[in-house]
Amino acid sequence: MTGSGPQFMSVLSGSDSCVNASHGCAIGWPKQSSSATSDIRNCTTSPPFLPPTVTDTSAQLNALRQRMQFYNISAYIVPATDAHMSEYIAERDARLAWISGFTGSAGTGVVTTKKAALWTDSRYWTQAERQMDCNWELQKIVWTDSIGEWLLQEIPAGENIGLDPFLFSIDLWNSYARVLQGSSRTLVPIEDNLVDLVWGSQRPPLPTSEIYLLPETFTGSTWQEKVSGIRSQMEQHSRSPTAVLLSALEETAWLFNLRGDDISYNPVFYSYALLTTSDISLFVDRNRLSAEALQSLSAQCPGPLCVQVEEYDQVRASVQAYAQGDVQVWIGTEYTTYGLYGVIPQDKLVESSYSPVMTTKAVKNAKEQALLKAAHVRDAVAMIQYLLWLEKNVPKGSVDEFSGARYVDKLRREKEHCRGASFETISASGLNAALAHYSPSNVSSRKLSVDEMYLSDSGGQYLDGTTDITRTVHWGEPSPFQKEAYTRVLMGNIDLARLVFPSETSGRVVEAFARRALWEVGLNYGHGTGHGIGNFLSVHEWPVGFQSNNVPLVKGMFTSIEPGYYQEGEFGIRIEDVALVVEAQTKHGAGEKAHLTFEVVSLVPYDRNLIDISFLSEDQIQYLNTYYETIRQRVGPELQRRQLEEEYEWLRRNTQPFSRGTLVATSLGTLAITSLVSTLLPDRQA
Amino acid sequence: MTGSGPQFMSVLSGSDSCVNASHGCAIGWPKQSSSATSDIRNCTTSPPFLPPTVTDTSAQLNALRQRMQFYNISAYIVPATDAHMSEYIAERDARLAWISGFTGSAGTGVVTTKKAALWTDSRYWTQAERQMDCNWELQKIVWTDSIGEWLLQEIPAGENIGLDPFLFSIDLWNSYARVLQGSSRTLVPIEDNLVDLVWGSQRPPLPTSEIYLLPETFTGSTWQEKVSGIRSQMEQHSRSPTAVLLSALEETAWLFNLRGDDISYNPVFYSYALLTTSDISLFVDRNRLSAEALQSLSAQCPGPLCVQVEEYDQVRASVQAYAQGDVQVWIGTEYTTYGLYGVIPQDKLVESSYSPVMTTKAVKNAKEQALLKAAHVRDAVAMIQYLLWLEKNVPKGSVDEFSGARYVDKLRREKEHCRGASFETISASGLNAALAHYSPSNVSSRKLSVDEMYLSDSGGQYLDGTTDITRTVHWGEPSPFQKEAYTRVLMGNIDLARLVFPSETSGRVVEAFARRALWEVGLNYGHGTGHGIGNFLSVHEWPVGFQSNNVPLVKGMFTSIEPGYYQEGEFGIRIEDVALVVEAQTKHGAGEKAHLTFEVVSLVPYDRNLIDISFLSEDQIQYLNTYYETIRQRVGPELQRRQLEEEYEWLRRNTQPFSRGTLVATSLGTLAITSLVSTLLPDRQA
Repeated sequence: MTGSGPQFMSVLSGSDSCVNASHGCAIGWPKQSSSATSDIRNCTTSPPFLPPTVTDTSAQLNALRQRMQFYNISAYIVPATDAHMSEYIAERDARLAWISGFTGSAGTGVVTTKKAALWTDSRYWTQAERQMDCNWELQKIVWTDSIGEWLLQEIPAGENIGLDPFLFSIDLWNSYARVLQGSSRTLVPIEDNLVDLVWGSQRPPLPTSEIYLLPETFTGSTWQEKVSGIRSQMEQHSRSPTAVLLSALEETAWLFNLRGDDISYNPVFYSYALLTTSDISLFVDRNRLSAEALQSLSAQCPGPLCVQVEEYDQVRASVQAYAQGDVQVWIGTEYTTYGLYGVIPQDKLVESSYSPVMTTKAVKNAKEQALLKAAHVRDAVAMIQYLLWLEKNVPKGSVDEFSGARYVDKLRREKEHCRGASFETISASGLNAALAHYSPSNVSSRKLSVDEMYLSDSGGQYLDGTTDITRTVHWGEPSPFQKEAYTRVLMGNIDLARLVFPSETSGRVVEAFARRALWEVGLNYGHGTGHGIGNFLSVHEWPVGFQSNNVPLVKGMFTSIEPGYYQEGEFGIRIEDVALVVEAQTKHGAGEKAHLTFEVVSLVPYDRNLIDISFLSEDQIQYLNTYYETIRQRVGPELQRRQLEEEYEWLRRNTQPFSRGTLVATSLGTLAITSLVSTLLPDRQA
Repeated sequence: MTGSGPQFMSVLSGSDSCVNASHGCAIGWPKQSSSATSDIRNCTTSPPFLPPTVTDTSAQLNALRQRMQFYNISAYIVPATDAHMSEYIAERDARLAWISGFTGSAGTGVVTTKKAALWTDSRYWTQAERQMDCNWELQKIVWTDSIGEWLLQEIPAGENIGLDPFLFSIDLWNSYARVLQGSSRTLVPIEDNLVDLVWGSQRPPLPTSEIYLLPETFTGSTWQEKVSGIRSQMEQHSRSPTAVLLSALEETAWLFNLRGDDISYNPVFYSYALLTTSDISLFVDRNRLSAEALQSLSAQCPGPLCVQVEEYDQVRASVQAYAQGDVQVWIGTEYTTYGLYGVIPQDKLVESSYSPVMTTKAVKNAKEQALLKAAHVRDAVAMIQYLLWLEKNVPKGSVDEFSGARYVDKLRREKEHCRGASFETISASGLNAALAHYSPSNVSSRKLSVDEMYLSDSGGQYLDGTTDITRTVHWGEPSPFQKEAYTRVLMGNIDLARLVFPSETSGRVVEAFARRALWEVGLNYGHGTGHGIGNFLSVHEWPVGFQSNNVPLVKGMFTSIEPGYYQEGEFGIRIEDVALVVEAQTKHGAGEKAHLTFEVVSLVPYDRNLIDISFLSEDQIQYLNTYYETIRQRVGPELQRRQLEEEYEWLRRNTQPFSRGTLVATSLGTLAITSLVSTLLPDRQA
C-alpha cells in the first residue's frame, strides 16, 4: 500500500521539505490534480445535491460548538490520529470521522463557530467529497501553514484556538505555534477532548481483549535482550539519558514481544513505557495481559529486568513524578505528544526525532530477516493462487471488486501463521484504480472485466512477518498507452530495486529512480515510493522509507518499492514489492566503501500482458530475468510441496525469461528444486 | 567549482538532513575519508614536526584568551563568514584565518582557555593540517551538534560561551542554543568582536573603492522594476509585511543594479537595505557611490522610488527604530544575523528561509538568460584556447600548475566584458587534484605532465554573466581505471543534464542521477553536485542547487552540474558545466503537466582521451553527440569571427560524433555557420 507516515506528518510545514509525497504533497508534482477534480457535491442548490454516502453532521457540530463556547475558543482542531500518533486508529479514536463523516486515514478538521473545514491529501479528495455534507468545506492542501493561514483569516485577533495536547506531536504543535506567532491568536491546550465530550456514551469503549506473548519462534530476540540493547544506547549517548519514554504502540509491542488487537489490521495494544537505567514501567490495562505475558514480564522481578505494570492512564502522572528527580528523559519528538512532553522540564529532555527503540526496530536482525522472508514465500503462494483464480473467473463475469478482495483475504487466512490482512484490501477495477486507495464495499463494487485493468493491493499479518504487495493486471487487450504506462512503472520499480548506493544514503535521495521512466514522457505519480514494514507489526513501519523524514538506509532494513501511475477517470497502475537492504557486490567498492542495494523479497511475477518489452533496456531485462529465476527457485518448491500443480504451471509460464524481439528458448524449463530446500527452512521451523 | 553554500550552512545540524554534500557531510558517504588521511603534523615530538606553511598563532591566541577572561567567557566561537553571511569574505573579515592560520573558505574555530579546535569539511582537511600549528586540533566533522558536544565536554557547567551575534545567522545561533539547551552552559552574545579587538590596527581597513552602476545593457530590468516586483510580493503575502530587510551583499547589488569590489572575485560591496512599502533605505558608505550611481538612486526623489542612502553602520539603529512602529518586517533567516534579528520584536517578524529578493534573483528573466549564455560563448573560447595551448606546451615540460592558472586567467581577461576571474583558479595536476579545491601558488606548483591527469576549474566575471567550468584532461596514456572513473563521472554529468523532471522538483531529489554510474561500481564523491550562478555576481549563487536547503527547480534557474571522483594520493576528476533549467518536450506531458530539463550552456568538449565509449549507453552517446553539435554551432562561428583557426580545427576534431565500436563517418564535417549568426547576437548587442 502506498506509504503514509504517522498522521501528524501529513501536515508538516516547510517549503523545500515536501515531506510526504504519499499524501499528495508530491515530489515535483505539487499541483497534480488540484484543479482536475470538481466537487461532486453541489451546496449552492436548495436543498443541496449530495451523494447518498454523506453523513449529516449538523447535530455533532452544534454540540461541539456549544462546548467550544464554554471553553471560550473560536476554533477547535480535530486531527485523525490518536494519543500514540498512530496511522491506523481504533474506532473510539475516530473523532474526525465522527465529527465530519470523512473516514480516510489522513486529514485534519477545523471547526469554528461558523465554518468547518477538512484538510486532506489528493488520495482522499474524492472520498471526502462523497462522505462530507455541506457543513464541511474541503481544503486540498496539506501543510500546517495552510491551516494556520486559514485560521488567521477566519479567527479574529485576540481569540483562542483549542487543541487536545494529547493528539498533537511536539513538532506539529510547534509548527502551529510558529504560524500563529505574533498574530495575537492563542493556541490553548484543553485536556478534555471536546469531541469525546459530545460523543459521550456513543463513543466505542476501551478494548478488553487479551494482550498476548509472541512465541519465541517469531521474535528476533528476547525482550530482555532488547531492553539491554536500548540501555547500552542510553549509556553511549553523550547526554547520558536516564530514561527512554515510549509512546508509539509499535514500540511497546516490539520491545516486550507482546501483541494485541486494539486496532484493526495492527496487532498492537494501548500502552506506554518508561524504560530507565534501573526500572521498567509498562502502562497498560493489567487485566488484559495473558498469564503467559505477565509471567514473562515479571520472571526476573525484582531487578533491572523486572517490568512493573502500571495503569495506562497513569502515564502522565508517573512521568511527571519521575521528571522531578535528577534525570534526563530521552524522547522521540515525532511520536511524543505535546501533552506528555509538557510534564518534563526542558532541561531534562533529550530529544531525537525517533526513540532508540524505533530506530533499532527499523534494522532487522538475521532472524527477523529470515522470518519476514519466509512470510513472503507463503504470501506469494496466496497471490499466485489469486492471480490464477482471477484469470479463470474474470472472463466468466463472476468476479467483482468486493468478491475478489474477499477471496484473496481468504487465501491468505488459510496460510500457516496468518492472522488476517495487514490493511483493508484495495481491489480496484478500471477507473476506480485511479483513486490510489480505493477499497470496495458490498454495496458498491465494480465487476472485473477483461476490458479493464485491475489493481490489487493487499497484505497479510503472519506471526513471522507483515506483507504488502500490489499487482496490476489486464486479461484482455490493453491500449498502447496502458502498456507504456505499466511498463514505465515497472521500469521505475526495477531501476530503484537494482540501484547500488552508499550505506546511509537517505531514501529521499534515491526515490526519483522509481520516477525517471515516467518523468521522461511527462508522467508521474502523486504518492510516496515506499515505507518500512514490520515483523507481525505495522504494514507502514516508520521511520524507514523514501521521504525526507525517514532515516538513512542501512543494511537490514525492509522497505516497499511502489511506483504507480493514475489516469483519472480511466485506470490506475501500481507495482509494489517489499525489498531488503543488502550489501552490494561492486567492482571497486569493498570494506569501508561497501555499497548497498535491494533484494526484493516479494515473489510474484508481473503481468506479461502489460509489459512492452521494447521500452526496457538490456540491463532491465536481465534484472527481470534474474528476479524471475529467484521466484521460481523460492516459490516453485513451495507450490509443489502444497501440490498446487496448476499454480506451479502458472508460475512457470509467467516467469519465462524475457528477451527483446526474440522468442525465448525455455532453457530454464525445469526448476532445480532439490538444491533449494534451504530456502524453505525458516517456514518449516515456524 | 564545487558547490558550497553560505558559510553557516556548513555546520547545520540534523541527522537525516545531510545538507551540504560539498562540505564533506556527504550524501551517503559520511565516513568517506575521515580515517584515510593522517595528519602531516606531528605534535608529539619536541619540537613538533610542522610543515613550513603553518602560522604560529600563539601570540594571537594569548591575546584572545585575555579578552575572553575579561568578558568572563570560557570559549569563543569564530566562524569563517562576515556580517552578511558571505561565502567569500574580504581580508578584514578573515578572522578565522588570522587566529588559526587556516585560510579555507569554510570552517569554524573554537578557542577555549586551554584548547583551540577547527571544524572543517573533507575538502579542507589537508589544507588545514598544512596551515595550522600545534595550538590547533582539527575536527573532521561539520555538524553544529559536534561542535556543541565538544563544548559540553570542554566547558564546565555554569560557564559561558561567547559569540559575535553579527556573525551568526538566526538558524545557526538557534542550533547552537538547541545543543546547549538544559546543559547549564550559556551562549553569550558579545557585540564587540574579540578577534577584532586583538587584531587591532593590523586589521585591514574598510574598502574605499567606487561603487558603480551596472550599465542597462547588462541588467535584466531597472532597479525600479525590481523594487516594484518585490513590493507586489509583499502585498500578496498573507502576513502583509510592510518591509523587507536585505542582509546578503548579492541582494543589494542585484536589486539596485550596483557593483563594487569589496570582496575578491565577487563584485559586491558592504551594504544592507530596508525596503518598505513607501521608502527605500540603502545602508552603504555614501562617499563610495559613483555620481552615476547616486543619480540613479535619487532620480525619483522624493517618492516611493527614491533611495535614501544611510550610513552602513546605522543599519541596526534604523531597523530598531523602524520596528517600533506598527510594522511587519520580512527577513530571510538564512542570511539575517542574530544581531539584526534581535532588534525586531518577535511579533513583527515575517520569516522565510530566503528573502523575496533572493528567490526572485534566482530565476533569470529572458534577458538575463541571454546575457549569461552570451558570456558562456566567450568563456568557451578562452577554455578552448587554453586546452589547445596545454596540448601543445605540456609535452614540452614548460607548464606548471601556477603558470597554467595564470595563462587561463589571462585568456579570460582578454575577452570582451571580462572583469577577471570568478574565483581563485583551481589548477591541479596528478595527486594534487585529489584535493577537490587545490589552488597552486608560485612557491609550490607541480609541473604538468603527459603522464598525469590534470584538473582545471576556473571561471570568469563578465559584465553579462559569471561563468564556472571544470575540465579534466590527460595527454598521455591514462590507466583503464582512470578512464573508467572519468567516463563514469561523465555519465553522471550526462544523466543529470538530460534528466526530465516535473517543475518544482527539489534538486536534492535528482542529484543522485549524477552519482549512479559511480555508485554502480562502489565509487562516489564527497561534495555537492551543483550550485546556482549569477549575472556578474556570485559564482555560487544561492539558493539554487542540489542540496536540501536549496529551493525547488523552476524554469529560468541556472545551476552547475559537477560530479567528480577523487583517488587520494593519485588523481582527481571533475566535470563541471553550467546549465539552464528549461521546459522539456515530452510525449505525454504538456500544459499543466509540463516537465523540465537542463540546457547546458557551458560549451567546451570533454577529453576524448579519457572517455571509454564502451561504458556509455546509446542514449548517452546520442546526448553527447547532440551537445557537441550545439558546441560546434555556437562556438565555431565565434572562433572563426576571431580568426582562431587553429582553435576552430581543435574544436572540430574534439566534437566529432561518437559511435560505439565504429569509426565515425564525419558527416558533420562542415559547420553550418551562416544560419547561426543569431546565436551570436546577444554578444554583439553587448
